[in-house]
Amino acid sequence: MLGSTHGTLTTHSRPARVVACGEQPPHTVHGMSEPHRDGGGQGACPVDRDVSGRPLHAPVPDLDRFFRPESVAVIGASDSEGRPHTGITRQLMAWAERVGARLHPVNPGRTQVFGQPCHASVADLPEPVDLAVLLVGDPLPVIEQLAEAKVKFAVAFASGFAETGERGAAAQERLAEAVARSGLRLLGPNTNLNAFEKFRTDLDGPAIALITQSGHQGRPVFSLQELGIRLSHWAPTGNEADLETADFLSYFATRPEVGAIAAYVEGLKDGRSFLLAADRAARNKVPVVAVKVGRTETGARTAASHTGKLTGADEVVDAAMRQFGVIRVDGLDELQDTAALLARARKPTAEGVAVYSISGGTGAHFSDLATAAGLRLPTLGPAKQAELHQWIPEYLHVANPVDNGGHPVGDWRGRKILDAILADPAIGVLICPITGPFPPMSDKLAQDLVDAAEQTDKLVCVVWGSPVGTEDAYRRTLLGSSRVATFRTFANCITAVRAYLDHHRFVDGYRSPFDDAPRVLSPSARKAQALMRPGQQLSEHAAKQLLRAYGIRVPREQLVTSAAAAVRAASLVGYPVVMKASGPQLAHKTELGLVKVQLTSASQVRDAYRELTDIARYEDVPLDGVLVCQMIERGVEMVVGVTQDSLFGPTVTVGLGGVLVEVLRDVVVGVPPFGEDQARAMLDELRGRALLDGVRGAPPADLDALVETVLRVQRMALELGDDLAELDINPLVVLPRGQGAVALDALAVCP
Amino acid sequence: MLGSTHGTLTTHSRPARVVACGEQPPHTVHGMSEPHRDGGGQGACPVDRDVSGRPLHAPVPDLDRFFRPESVAVIGASDSEGRPHTGITRQLMAWAERVGARLHPVNPGRTQVFGQPCHASVADLPEPVDLAVLLVGDPLPVIEQLAEAKVKFAVAFASGFAETGERGAAAQERLAEAVARSGLRLLGPNTNLNAFEKFRTDLDGPAIALITQSGHQGRPVFSLQELGIRLSHWAPTGNEADLETADFLSYFATRPEVGAIAAYVEGLKDGRSFLLAADRAARNKVPVVAVKVGRTETGARTAASHTGKLTGADEVVDAAMRQFGVIRVDGLDELQDTAALLARARKPTAEGVAVYSISGGTGAHFSDLATAAGLRLPTLGPAKQAELHQWIPEYLHVANPVDNGGHPVGDWRGRKILDAILADPAIGVLICPITGPFPPMSDKLAQDLVDAAEQTDKLVCVVWGSPVGTEDAYRRTLLGSSRVATFRTFANCITAVRAYLDHHRFVDGYRSPFDDAPRVLSPSARKAQALMRPGQQLSEHAAKQLLRAYGIRVPREQLVTSAAAAVRAASLVGYPVVMKASGPQLAHKTELGLVKVQLTSASQVRDAYRELTDIARYEDVPLDGVLVCQMIERGVEMVVGVTQDSLFGPTVTVGLGGVLVEVLRDVVVGVPPFGEDQARAMLDELRGRALLDGVRGAPPADLDALVETVLRVQRMALELGDDLAELDINPLVVLPRGQGAVALDALAVCP
Repeated sequence: MLGSTHGTLTTHSRPARVVACGEQPPHTVHGMSEPHRDGGGQGACPVDRDVSGRPLHAPVPDLDRFFRPESVAVIGASDSEGRPHTGITRQLMAWAERVGARLHPVNPGRTQVFGQPCHASVADLPEPVDLAVLLVGDPLPVIEQLAEAKVKFAVAFASGFAETGERGAAAQERLAEAVARSGLRLLGPNTNLNAFEKFRTDLDGPAIALITQSGHQGRPVFSLQELGIRLSHWAPTGNEADLETADFLSYFATRPEVGAIAAYVEGLKDGRSFLLAADRAARNKVPVVAVKVGRTETGARTAASHTGKLTGADEVVDAAMRQFGVIRVDGLDELQDTAALLARARKPTAEGVAVYSISGGTGAHFSDLATAAGLRLPTLGPAKQAELHQWIPEYLHVANPVDNGGHPVGDWRGRKILDAILADPAIGVLICPITGPFPPMSDKLAQDLVDAAEQTDKLVCVVWGSPVGTEDAYRRTLLGSSRVATFRTFANCITAVRAYLDHHRFVDGYRSPFDDAPRVLSPSARKAQALMRPGQQLSEHAAKQLLRAYGIRVPREQLVTSAAAAVRAASLVGYPVVMKASGPQLAHKTELGLVKVQLTSASQVRDAYRELTDIARYEDVPLDGVLVCQMIERGVEMVVGVTQDSLFGPTVTVGLGGVLVEVLRDVVVGVPPFGEDQARAMLDELRGRALLDGVRGAPPADLDALVETVLRVQRMALELGDDLAELDINPLVVLPRGQGAVALDALAVCP
Repeated sequence: MLGSTHGTLTTHSRPARVVACGEQPPHTVHGMSEPHRDGGGQGACPVDRDVSGRPLHAPVPDLDRFFRPESVAVIGASDSEGRPHTGITRQLMAWAERVGARLHPVNPGRTQVFGQPCHASVADLPEPVDLAVLLVGDPLPVIEQLAEAKVKFAVAFASGFAETGERGAAAQERLAEAVARSGLRLLGPNTNLNAFEKFRTDLDGPAIALITQSGHQGRPVFSLQELGIRLSHWAPTGNEADLETADFLSYFATRPEVGAIAAYVEGLKDGRSFLLAADRAARNKVPVVAVKVGRTETGARTAASHTGKLTGADEVVDAAMRQFGVIRVDGLDELQDTAALLARARKPTAEGVAVYSISGGTGAHFSDLATAAGLRLPTLGPAKQAELHQWIPEYLHVANPVDNGGHPVGDWRGRKILDAILADPAIGVLICPITGPFPPMSDKLAQDLVDAAEQTDKLVCVVWGSPVGTEDAYRRTLLGSSRVATFRTFANCITAVRAYLDHHRFVDGYRSPFDDAPRVLSPSARKAQALMRPGQQLSEHAAKQLLRAYGIRVPREQLVTSAAAAVRAASLVGYPVVMKASGPQLAHKTELGLVKVQLTSASQVRDAYRELTDIARYEDVPLDGVLVCQMIERGVEMVVGVTQDSLFGPTVTVGLGGVLVEVLRDVVVGVPPFGEDQARAMLDELRGRALLDGVRGAPPADLDALVETVLRVQRMALELGDDLAELDINPLVVLPRGQGAVALDALAVCP
């Protein structure tokens, strides 16, 4: 199965919009169970969909019998030498024996396979088996037979489905439908034997559970077992015609033996399922570390609006992961190292990191990189430094990083120093980078670190920097300890420790946004729906009414159709005024000269009216009138918008306005549902965030009003759902603190 | 010596300002030689200093006899068990034997050391030795004796110098002076035995030469020899009282066996020496890869001006490295991998990268990261794809990345595919990521890659992703080949390949800025010097005259001291005008209300004059008058400035103006001397670079005028040298193409 291109389809989620109390999830699957850990989100409220029609909780599939079946059927089993199925049959028999499952070969052409009685068909199976492994070219015809035989799970290895193009995708669609009708759960097609590999059973402690959409890509994490890291499961999800990454994520998040979930993801089948699974992991405090391919697919799904263009799908997945605490990494080595650390390390007692080394250079270098990555290295107190100087020469720095000068590690002082650092209450993590082996020192140091780690709840990390990696101190001493986290590079150690501290901070403060997601339409929705014009881009005036319906402030303005009315409007609105041509399909008003600012008199208003309508006529732009608007004192210009994402549905974007949004793309995405705290966290990710705090003597902007606007836009996006293809408030002027935020211009597109 | 904190002093370089033709470098050192490679920059012109008084070329110290001495004296040699010097003496004797040097122990208390005759003092040495190793607590008294004995080089291991504080620094200063007087060259103090380690001599091909300011930090690069990578030299520079990083850099750059230089740098002794050494490496096309500690010391040297604050010393070093093609990396693992690749890979035949894998997932993932890092993966042509499909199933993607689906690598097809990809003229680099070992496939694949690499000049890279690293295919097959570059992580492979392509592109287009650096004062300098006011901040008007002296455009303006004069000035300058209070020590004019814009009539000018002088009186700000200035149509606001750096002297900063400079710190630094191409390259590094090309319908800005201004500011910085502590043009308005650039405001500080 190596080398196959998986064809995970990204389906447009267009769920039913009707919200009915008491409605059940779309299909109920047998084999559902209460999760072992807190299942979460399954409270008393019978409403389990949000106002957009998307589910607010997902069932945890019970995959116990998939990973630990009592009986297994192998459909297409073979023992003829040279046939590819023979090797697979042999592997499955060995696996069944290891996990204690009864194995039943099925093959119409044989009576025995490897000495086991072989059955002619599924119907002839002697018992209702837990798991059927399909070694057949076309699994479709077998599905119904399996369902009739009350088989719980099936695995289809066959390739030639969505990964091969349109015809394959259609075949996969038929397979998926058959599976959905059947009630069984299917892994695959286009998957492989990874779930049935030989796992080491001699390792204990919390394990990594692995999910991969490409078998080869999971191999390095699986190999961690050779370095002493326990692995509990491997789910190679293949094309995900039925069971998907999210199913395994939520199942693993409920398993007590799982300390961390490592995932290699190429595409998601459904955004909401992923969010709900990540939410379950967050509630259960199970860390999820993921590689998600797609950093450079940004341009693939360009949307029409500015903010849409600037975010793109990968940024949306990125935002979704961040919101739900999924740790995204780029490399498989980071995936290994981060998952291994998170699986095994206990909860931190403090966030301070101490760096300890036998070389001042190493300490300086490591601290430089660690600090740049956001780790905090607290200065050790005078008493602690004095304590350390009992064993470390006075001229060496021990404030943190602690430089021992080398010699003390060779004798009894080495362990004293370690214990003294670990006893400091400000320190939660001790990191000792050993860049080169120098056996008289590094062997003893490694052993001291292992011993010290046994005596503390704090995290002890070692970087073994030698590129050779065959040294005893590394292979035996360090890797032999389950209490020391051993890395090969500074960077991976820093990434993993940062993720470790971030994860615990995140889950400790986690409050599921699904608990507070809106379940019923607000009164604003009816007003807003009346404004929608299918297939059209609304005029600026109409788009602003939409905003007004959701309580978002717009300037005082009137739409007029004569110069005289414009003058009357101006005196009502109050001078100075801004005048703009207004019409559907009207964009780039400023470039066309269709905006006039700072008009201070009736005659200027009259002239402006004439000029605007002249230009519109000349440019052949249909107008619904001219807007006479209140001029707003300048605040901080932002953009806030809604974009439809093919995976997650409507998403909310916020960015710095004006030239910044275009040149620097300083935009962040929020994937609904998110709460106020998350909206504030989004703003903190803007590079130009400081603008909101006031620069060059400008007053701080009304952050609360900005957050409120973002939340109102989210509500609108959820309530209007597919009826609003795109919204772009540009600019939203955020006034000084206490004065609110005003949408100066808006663009809304109905699909 | 592990663990010592090296005290490399950063000396303020305040060179003599006099520029005299025919002047020689400050001290001539015996043992100077013509370099083996092109020495560069030693043309016919007798002037070897630029207009700022800094040298335009540096001699290459001849260190042949340091690394390969014919005779060595060990001062303080010992063979008493238990004495630390005994171990060192033993190591030095073994090393001397390996390199074929005669060794002479010196110790007044012994007649023999390890069976060798021991001399009572340096004066008793039987021959003038090449190298004296000083195992004495205080090397100072020995220096003169060594010089008298015509010793060429000395190494001082003693610590207790600049790394220990002020008293140590003073002792180091005395040592440095004695060395300078003596004519010998000294390595250390506070260095170690690294230069005299046991190097593998069985490896051939281009080697890595290593320079480290902390011995422990060089150990991983040294260990590369165990993986088959040749190392030729190791220079542990210690405190650099005499010989410094730059000396070794330029020496190694002339050695024919050196393929790449790897450096671990904590601080530089002198900026210009480093630039000249890097320049020599660039001229000689020798790649330099460096870790430079100090990413987070940004705040350490805050300067008074905006741009100074925004750049800081680490950014200056970073810019210097970039300008001279030094590849800066963060991790020691990157240093190893990048230096090893650059040392051994031949010049690329093309910049296109082909990614080849036995798994579609691996290909997708690697390509994603490679593309994000700026590598170019050209789509293979239809004929090449058809050729590949002879051996690879039709449904697999072979356009690049090439996914072979696994099976073809197991037989004769594997090698065919490799050769076919390598034959494509658009491809200069083939990368095969093997994330997990699967011996039936990966063993054969590894061997095919090694064989194919032997037959091509193109670069073949493999990523061996297994975290175990004891597999035969990795240890024997891949590491056994000097033609395949083997990595352990995607990231390091991508970093190294990117550096490889960048390096060759850089050196191919390299033109030394030292060749074109100004050697004589321009006529502007005299005018400018007359304007300087030591110890003062110049008034805006005076600062603009300074700019004008260097041909930098400023608005038409007049300094007036009465309302009537202001009105006369306004009509000369032309309405509308801007009026600003002008005086020395005057900053934050806008915040104080000391700027009035868009004045369109005589009465407004009169009122403005009164108001400005009233405010100035109220705020107690001394004025030299009021400026009446031409109003400039808005262009792109930039900042251009000069900051004094303690290492490099005057540096030129360019950034985006207005709020951008303050909030986003979008500023780049240029370290003189740099030419027009480098000035353009600086601008390309600005994140907001696109603003200069015109956004939102704005016309493209006059880039040529901006570049010209930057070069004129550089000239000013070089010519005024220390007389100009700081210059800050903010804003420089860059008008539309063809219309120039105008300095609207400027601040200049004389020291």
